[in-house]
Amino acid sequence: MRTINVGLIGLGTVGSGVVEIVRRHGDHYLARAGVDIRLTRYADADEQRFEDLGLPAASCATDWRTVVDDPDVDIVIELIGGTGVAHEVVIAALDAGKSVVTANKALMASAGKEVMDHAAAQGVDIAFEASVGGGIPIIGPLKHSLTSNEIQSVMGIVNGTTNYMLTRMAEDGLDYDTALAEAQAKGFAEADPTADVDGLDAAAKIAILASIAFNSRVTLEQVPTEGIRSLTPLDIEYAEEMGYAVKLLAIARRTESGVDIRVHPTLMPASHPLAGVNGVYNAIYVVGDSVGETMFFGEGAGSLPAASAVVGDVIEVARHLAKNCLGFVGCTCTEQLPVRDIADLETAYYIRLEVIDQPGVLAATSKVFADNVVSLASVIQKAEAGRGEIVDLVYVTHRASERAVRESLAEIAALPTVRAVGTVLRAEDL
Amino acid sequence: MRTINVGLIGLGTVGSGVVEIVRRHGDHYLARAGVDIRLTRYADADEQRFEDLGLPAASCATDWRTVVDDPDVDIVIELIGGTGVAHEVVIAALDAGKSVVTANKALMASAGKEVMDHAAAQGVDIAFEASVGGGIPIIGPLKHSLTSNEIQSVMGIVNGTTNYMLTRMAEDGLDYDTALAEAQAKGFAEADPTADVDGLDAAAKIAILASIAFNSRVTLEQVPTEGIRSLTPLDIEYAEEMGYAVKLLAIARRTESGVDIRVHPTLMPASHPLAGVNGVYNAIYVVGDSVGETMFFGEGAGSLPAASAVVGDVIEVARHLAKNCLGFVGCTCTEQLPVRDIADLETAYYIRLEVIDQPGVLAATSKVFADNVVSLASVIQKAEAGRGEIVDLVYVTHRASERAVRESLAEIAALPTVRAVGTVLRAEDL
Repeated sequence: MRTINVGLIGLGTVGSGVVEIVRRHGDHYLARAGVDIRLTRYADADEQRFEDLGLPAASCATDWRTVVDDPDVDIVIELIGGTGVAHEVVIAALDAGKSVVTANKALMASAGKEVMDHAAAQGVDIAFEASVGGGIPIIGPLKHSLTSNEIQSVMGIVNGTTNYMLTRMAEDGLDYDTALAEAQAKGFAEADPTADVDGLDAAAKIAILASIAFNSRVTLEQVPTEGIRSLTPLDIEYAEEMGYAVKLLAIARRTESGVDIRVHPTLMPASHPLAGVNGVYNAIYVVGDSVGETMFFGEGAGSLPAASAVVGDVIEVARHLAKNCLGFVGCTCTEQLPVRDIADLETAYYIRLEVIDQPGVLAATSKVFADNVVSLASVIQKAEAGRGEIVDLVYVTHRASERAVRESLAEIAALPTVRAVGTVLRAEDL
Repeated sequence: MRTINVGLIGLGTVGSGVVEIVRRHGDHYLARAGVDIRLTRYADADEQRFEDLGLPAASCATDWRTVVDDPDVDIVIELIGGTGVAHEVVIAALDAGKSVVTANKALMASAGKEVMDHAAAQGVDIAFEASVGGGIPIIGPLKHSLTSNEIQSVMGIVNGTTNYMLTRMAEDGLDYDTALAEAQAKGFAEADPTADVDGLDAAAKIAILASIAFNSRVTLEQVPTEGIRSLTPLDIEYAEEMGYAVKLLAIARRTESGVDIRVHPTLMPASHPLAGVNGVYNAIYVVGDSVGETMFFGEGAGSLPAASAVVGDVIEVARHLAKNCLGFVGCTCTEQLPVRDIADLETAYYIRLEVIDQPGVLAATSKVFADNVVSLASVIQKAEAGRGEIVDLVYVTHRASERAVRESLAEIAALPTVRAVGTVLRAEDL
């Protein structure tokens, strides 16, 4: 048994969850895992939080360096987030020979290699289970049990805010603005929802998962990303009619020409395990060459679920410290696979055109697709009340090249009978 | 980097999968995990298998002792199964100072403590991820990331054979015998299906999961178990009509009076994540006090999925060997919780009575329930063609005590208008 001193930097939503869990279960960890985990140092820019959480004043400081510089601290938990101060904190803590536990997806997705190099140089642990999927164990399974596989694909609903919004839009026909306002009122979305609704949060998470799954570093900047701002309840309704659910999907696939990685609203068959994941829940679907299909489901956000993963990491690192075997699983990026240009993508597409309802419009638009070798799987025409002569032509294509679809749409937009190219969505597993 | 010599005992379905995976990916493991895993010894009672798998004769023997006695073997994989020879093999290997990887649920569920004690005495690893849920990582997540939680319940569809049969009965109205014959024809069920259809396989698995989740040893013998032999497609149809799916569920729950553990066909709301798990798939649903709801889904059986978990364990143990940190997570049963008598259970029930269709029968049977303080949630009456005056009365109760339900049914069976007590099923989450 050994006492492990832990310093906690960042006392926001997840940080306060960590304090609560360790208070509740610290004694259990000693009994069950043989490690006496003690939170001995706290730092946060907001002094009020020390009092709110009932922390001893002598252990608290607004300067994070008091945590990193304390020679008695074994593990530093970084829960500031972002790539500014948090980056400085993590590197300084590792360089001081401390193991680090973080929930910081942006940092790990943009500077993961640098962080891991610093950990390896000191022979310490860097653990980041909470950076993806909240409390869902996914990084552990990928780095351990599933290591025996060549992973073929990882796809996830990894942003609870947008999944909540899409669920409300699908089930109750809310429009985007109403769904966002409701998510904000319930505390699921922030005042500035950019990172969620534009898909950046999901992009960071899939970069992390792809790097582990494919043993090849993918960074946030390499992930083509589209959010859900332009989605309408109408599109979701049409998709449902045709047997699909619409989800903001983070996709990573190993292909012969490199890693196919992207985040965008996606049509998927209603029968797919991910299609039934609703509300704030997250799920990550992994296909390996031996294990076949697997899925990991749970609460992707919130104070206690994310703190569950952080404290799980702390216990794991503490066990390593107690057994003197830090750093036994570090960076696993041993290959250098290229990341594919999204223009090289071949998949199926959902295309909604707003056209003038007159003879020949279906023939004209369909001809453009045919000329560009975009083969069509189905088309429906929909008239909406109050739009006069404008109707929706909704196409679903067979597998086609992204380039050919883009070229088709440029030509179609110029047709006199076409008022607008409405929504274009990629579809999976068709 | 270090060469890790592995001996493989048992070359059946899973064993041959292990050979295939290591052949396919051995070089990857060296590059990615820094361990050079070599299968150097094989044993099986059936010599023909050596040839079928193209193994070098000099490395093969029918006597398992040649593997365990080889001083160069670091890790022994036991894939014989059962509690006879396999028990001897595992204990001998551990006593010889070798780490052991096994898929043996029966052994771990009945002699888990003995096995772990032998591993601890030698300071070696015992790993058994493949014993539950085939390739689904579940033991790893419970022992690592989710350790931060007090786990409140673990419920699983952990037997693919019966889930396949129930899916066929539900979706296509097959009766039990036809569903079984089909499962056997497809290779999902063995010639002697007892372990699957009577729930013993599921009971072993939930004993293992409960022991880890609640940090308290539960053995196979302590799990009240009912199989699916008496289930009819009619019951599944009635349940569906009332909004439920019927699954062979393995249930373990932490309660104030001890561990509530059992295996039986169970009604669950069609909206529950487990209700949609069909065919040969498995899923384990875990609720923790911090993480909330999580679910782990995948292929629960088959050569490669189970071998995926076995080889994942081998890589993990090999990393520990290479880093000289074996045995850092051993037995976690630090508490001694009592196991509750199923007679003390309180849950909801589905009860199908076969009664004579005449005035007063509903009143008479309902009165017996009322007299025994069994409160009724709903009742439907169903006449089936060709049964003359006999009709089905189908009750679903509110939460009631198992004792009161049993006493009610004994009284009801004696009523002159009641031909038989048909099916009685427990229900979850009502």
